[in-house]
Amino acid sequence: MVVRFGLLGAGRIGKVHAQAVSGNPGARLVAVADAVAPAAEALAADYGAEVRTVEAIAEAPDVDAVVICTPTDTHAELIEAFARKGKAVFCEKPVDLDVARVRACLKVVEETGARLMVGFNRRFDPHFRAVRAAVDEGRVGKVEMVNITSRDPGAPPLDYVRRSGGIFRDMTIHDLDMARWLLGEEPVAVAAFGSVLTDPEIGRAGDFDSVNVLLETAGGRQAVISNSRRATYGYDQRIEVLGSGGMVAAENQREVSIEVATGAGFLRPPLLDFFMNRYTAAYAAEIASFVAALREGTPLAPSGQDGLAALVLAEAAVRSVTEGRRVEVSEIG
Amino acid sequence: MVVRFGLLGAGRIGKVHAQAVSGNPGARLVAVADAVAPAAEALAADYGAEVRTVEAIAEAPDVDAVVICTPTDTHAELIEAFARKGKAVFCEKPVDLDVARVRACLKVVEETGARLMVGFNRRFDPHFRAVRAAVDEGRVGKVEMVNITSRDPGAPPLDYVRRSGGIFRDMTIHDLDMARWLLGEEPVAVAAFGSVLTDPEIGRAGDFDSVNVLLETAGGRQAVISNSRRATYGYDQRIEVLGSGGMVAAENQREVSIEVATGAGFLRPPLLDFFMNRYTAAYAAEIASFVAALREGTPLAPSGQDGLAALVLAEAAVRSVTEGRRVEVSEIG
Amino acid sequence: MVVRFGLLGAGRIGKVHAQAVSGNPGARLVAVADAVAPAAEALAADYGAEVRTVEAIAEAPDVDAVVICTPTDTHAELIEAFARKGKAVFCEKPVDLDVARVRACLKVVEETGARLMVGFNRRFDPHFRAVRAAVDEGRVGKVEMVNITSRDPGAPPLDYVRRSGGIFRDMTIHDLDMARWLLGEEPVAVAAFGSVLTDPEIGRAGDFDSVNVLLETAGGRQAVISNSRRATYGYDQRIEVLGSGGMVAAENQREVSIEVATGAGFLRPPLLDFFMNRYTAAYAAEIASFVAALREGTPLAPSGQDGLAALVLAEAAVRSVTEGRRVEVSEIG
Amino acid sequence: MVVRFGLLGAGRIGKVHAQAVSGNPGARLVAVADAVAPAAEALAADYGAEVRTVEAIAEAPDVDAVVICTPTDTHAELIEAFARKGKAVFCEKPVDLDVARVRACLKVVEETGARLMVGFNRRFDPHFRAVRAAVDEGRVGKVEMVNITSRDPGAPPLDYVRRSGGIFRDMTIHDLDMARWLLGEEPVAVAAFGSVLTDPEIGRAGDFDSVNVLLETAGGRQAVISNSRRATYGYDQRIEVLGSGGMVAAENQREVSIEVATGAGFLRPPLLDFFMNRYTAAYAAEIASFVAALREGTPLAPSGQDGLAALVLAEAAVRSVTEGRRVEVSEIG
Repeated sequence: MVVRFGLLGAGRIGKVHAQAVSGNPGARLVAVADAVAPAAEALAADYGAEVRTVEAIAEAPDVDAVVICTPTDTHAELIEAFARKGKAVFCEKPVDLDVARVRACLKVVEETGARLMVGFNRRFDPHFRAVRAAVDEGRVGKVEMVNITSRDPGAPPLDYVRRSGGIFRDMTIHDLDMARWLLGEEPVAVAAFGSVLTDPEIGRAGDFDSVNVLLETAGGRQAVISNSRRATYGYDQRIEVLGSGGMVAAENQREVSIEVATGAGFLRPPLLDFFMNRYTAAYAAEIASFVAALREGTPLAPSGQDGLAALVLAEAAVRSVTEGRRVEVSEIG
Repeated sequence: MVVRFGLLGAGRIGKVHAQAVSGNPGARLVAVADAVAPAAEALAADYGAEVRTVEAIAEAPDVDAVVICTPTDTHAELIEAFARKGKAVFCEKPVDLDVARVRACLKVVEETGARLMVGFNRRFDPHFRAVRAAVDEGRVGKVEMVNITSRDPGAPPLDYVRRSGGIFRDMTIHDLDMARWLLGEEPVAVAAFGSVLTDPEIGRAGDFDSVNVLLETAGGRQAVISNSRRATYGYDQRIEVLGSGGMVAAENQREVSIEVATGAGFLRPPLLDFFMNRYTAAYAAEIASFVAALREGTPLAPSGQDGLAALVLAEAAVRSVTEGRRVEVSEIG
Repeated sequence: MVVRFGLLGAGRIGKVHAQAVSGNPGARLVAVADAVAPAAEALAADYGAEVRTVEAIAEAPDVDAVVICTPTDTHAELIEAFARKGKAVFCEKPVDLDVARVRACLKVVEETGARLMVGFNRRFDPHFRAVRAAVDEGRVGKVEMVNITSRDPGAPPLDYVRRSGGIFRDMTIHDLDMARWLLGEEPVAVAAFGSVLTDPEIGRAGDFDSVNVLLETAGGRQAVISNSRRATYGYDQRIEVLGSGGMVAAENQREVSIEVATGAGFLRPPLLDFFMNRYTAAYAAEIASFVAALREGTPLAPSGQDGLAALVLAEAAVRSVTEGRRVEVSEIG
Repeated sequence: MVVRFGLLGAGRIGKVHAQAVSGNPGARLVAVADAVAPAAEALAADYGAEVRTVEAIAEAPDVDAVVICTPTDTHAELIEAFARKGKAVFCEKPVDLDVARVRACLKVVEETGARLMVGFNRRFDPHFRAVRAAVDEGRVGKVEMVNITSRDPGAPPLDYVRRSGGIFRDMTIHDLDMARWLLGEEPVAVAAFGSVLTDPEIGRAGDFDSVNVLLETAGGRQAVISNSRRATYGYDQRIEVLGSGGMVAAENQREVSIEVATGAGFLRPPLLDFFMNRYTAAYAAEIASFVAALREGTPLAPSGQDGLAALVLAEAAVRSVTEGRRVEVSEIG
């Protein structure tokens, strides 16, 4: 059985998923929808798919699953609509910026028995998977601390910042999901600090560009997330897990592994500086995992509940900064 | 002028300083005092010094400066006593575990005009100095974040734990000093999480073995300190400074730089696993700095005020864990 | 214009090139030929191509270019046949194991005006290309020495060894090409040592498994190639170029960039251990270069002459071992 | 028993050894001789030793051993003189630039039963010792290849070049000793290439500045030595040993282990750029080994025979370049 896909949203991330679907021997891209007709047409042409409306895709008997890459504020509604039509849904993070709205959406998913996977692509990065595998194999003993350094090469446009829900819900949320994925226990408390250091406009937009977050589980395991919107040296994506028996760490990635030695020193190139380059393999593996789970009837992960849990942690981080205190996760709505 | 030293305390750290003094061409070890006579005698014999009482050293015209390596609860009193005798004082951290006591002691130092340096050895580590130099030279732009990973190879004996003042005052204090030294602005707020993960006895002793601390300056710069009492792979001592223009990082240190490649992978040796080995060069440079400042009449650093400031931050961290909130540094005291 | 390909040989390396052709938007795989019918059929089915005979492909008006992946002893004849039919030819190295035969073949290529590219895939590895780019940009000054370490994970089957032409013509030839590509001057002299250390059967087959080769150009530039058929830690492929102004080096490649730290030390995974994994990107870039040159009418490189030059150096290395002396390249027939 | 030393030659390397002797608790520097009186006086004053003539030191009952740091052309004569007086001798490499002269000298040493150690300091470098230890412990299986990259930061003064005996006897000789030390079998054949690339004056002085050497043992083990007189990035000193079970490598050394990351890339400092800095620990360990062997009556290594063997290999390398052929070691002298 080949999984037949409809793609909702033909923008930057839509293209990434279209390529991942098309490159997967168990999947086929059938239809593309986008409010901007030329974008949909171009993408459909590239992969031999048809342009259709969202409604037509929802009704289409030749579409088994959809990939939702539309603007965030449409995610929950689309998930519900396609869940009700019995389509499997892969939705880019987040389900919604509002915890209550996510909960309502997941209730529909549950009631319809629909299959939903949320796009936390980093879980599929081969380096981070190797970290997780090392943990699962017991190579570092019992997990004690997870240290995540996650810095963007540069801040997104202010327009994006204003619609993003803030750095915790937009950027940190990926790291919160990674922390949950690696801690082996659910975080129960959050503390966070936030500053505006790279661009005062970000502050005027009500957001931060530099944040640090502490997480603690019921068993006392801790995670530290260090975020900045600006790293001049590239897309800084490092993860360490300390356990009772040792530590496992994933290094940063470069396009090429060379070093030039001169009187000035030994110079390696800067890091890959764009999330799509950095996570090319992860995006392909993510869709592959979705496709394989649909074909084999196995559970989808990360699930809608994973999406909710990360959002709740982001919400707790926001509240921690606002109220200047440790926030229990159970306090969040 | 050669600076003539008296050494108070002939224990483990006393030996380190005795060697540093003796190896310094501008210094001479004249006298050693220790409550345990054989310890004093052995150390004195090793370096051609005399055994004397603390009181005799205080009165000795042939002693210009003392190094205080006695138990912590004697530090403040000894500093005051030697300050009053006009001796220059190098005191191992901390001045005292109690902020009020430190303030009182520093008042005496100020009134007597005595010269006091506090032993934050890490400021003299050549790798960390190179980090600081890179920052000072503007190579990473304006400082935004300091990330410190600092893990001991193993927990100290429980007896030590009980007398230590707790992990924040005993271990984290070094990192708090480093954070102050590298942030370029004073921290104004602290948040911390603490857990017991390596040994429940540490919890029963009222302490933690795994802590993470966030610091924030008035200008919004942040620091993250990640501590554990146990790193099976050695003494993990890393520092990173992120600035507007880049990042500078100091790597961990090994005894030898080899790598063995087999079918199992590429294996480098574990880290240096003892603070004295890791910081051998730092201890020598620390004493050299003390001696040079005395000979040239330049300011001593880190000063008593630096010792106080780090202790205040440690105190704030304790309070943050206890009260589950962000603590303003101005509250301490 | 899309370049329409016929593929000759559906074995291991044939599959690699079929994938590279199919993944290239400027190319299409039209036909596959292989003496083993099921192999041809399976490969043709995978990429929507037809199975045809070699003769049919040679005559086919819908085939612009061929990729020759058949056994080595058929290469020269096939090149000549397709050159005469006006097809562009990409031929896996080597053109032939015999220098005279290669010369004769290249004469046909020249007379027919055919376009020929030889498969030295390493020139297209992104890391090695970055090394070459650094050299071309003058970042290391004038080239003085090229140091190549090139070790296979394990010896090929003895059957292969016997037909391979020996390690210099089979394995070292890649490094000889890299040395020529990086030295910036033609080697004029060769010295080599050869031993049998990994398997005495290799010696009985008249071959070596461990060789070192020195090259010298007219201007005195030197290259060192160090080969072994066995590196237990993976496929060891390193290149360094020393120049008057510095050095540039390409590191080895791993599947994942993690490190596990324990009391035993810091362990990174072994290297990629198969040439197809190690050079996946290189094979794709190689075909892309062939396709682009055909479409744009630009020169093909590496050319047949490059294939010849590397073989001449291999021949000189064989003679150097046999005769125990430095061999001038001009001596080779 | 404390070993009482006389030091012959108070130049650059003499100072290094004076410090090593003085810092060793089992040794004492008693006397210093140098043709340049102020040099001898300054060094003697620094370490509380007396200035004496060579002859007085030879007769002195309070001198057990001498360190010979005089010009090369005096070494053999001094060794013989002190051997006859029953003093233990540590002599900087080489014993002499002429193989026959070395043989004659070692005959005297043998006849007198004197104890002689030759200064191949690199055997005492902690990193290289760790390489050797890994080999001895069988961590890489049976040794097959030794790859040594050894480059000076810059060429010595031409005056020195002219008196040096040529790069093979002056610089490569260290690497030849390391190769012998690591191969586990004696080399029986040598091939070498030599060029002048950094400074034509070196060529006019009859020497090379860029050489590569191949060695082969009777068992077919091989070593490759790659030398240059100029590495702009520092003193490049790397060693790799490939065995049947894996590889062990020693990395280069820097003064500090930091990395600065900016938009230009990740920059580490250049290497230590002076042999005395790079090998500080090695010089101290070398003298410590000499002292310990004298005190314990155990064999001295490297011995005079080791010095001879390395010189013979250097001689063979010279002949190989001159005659354009593989030279059997047995041909020399």
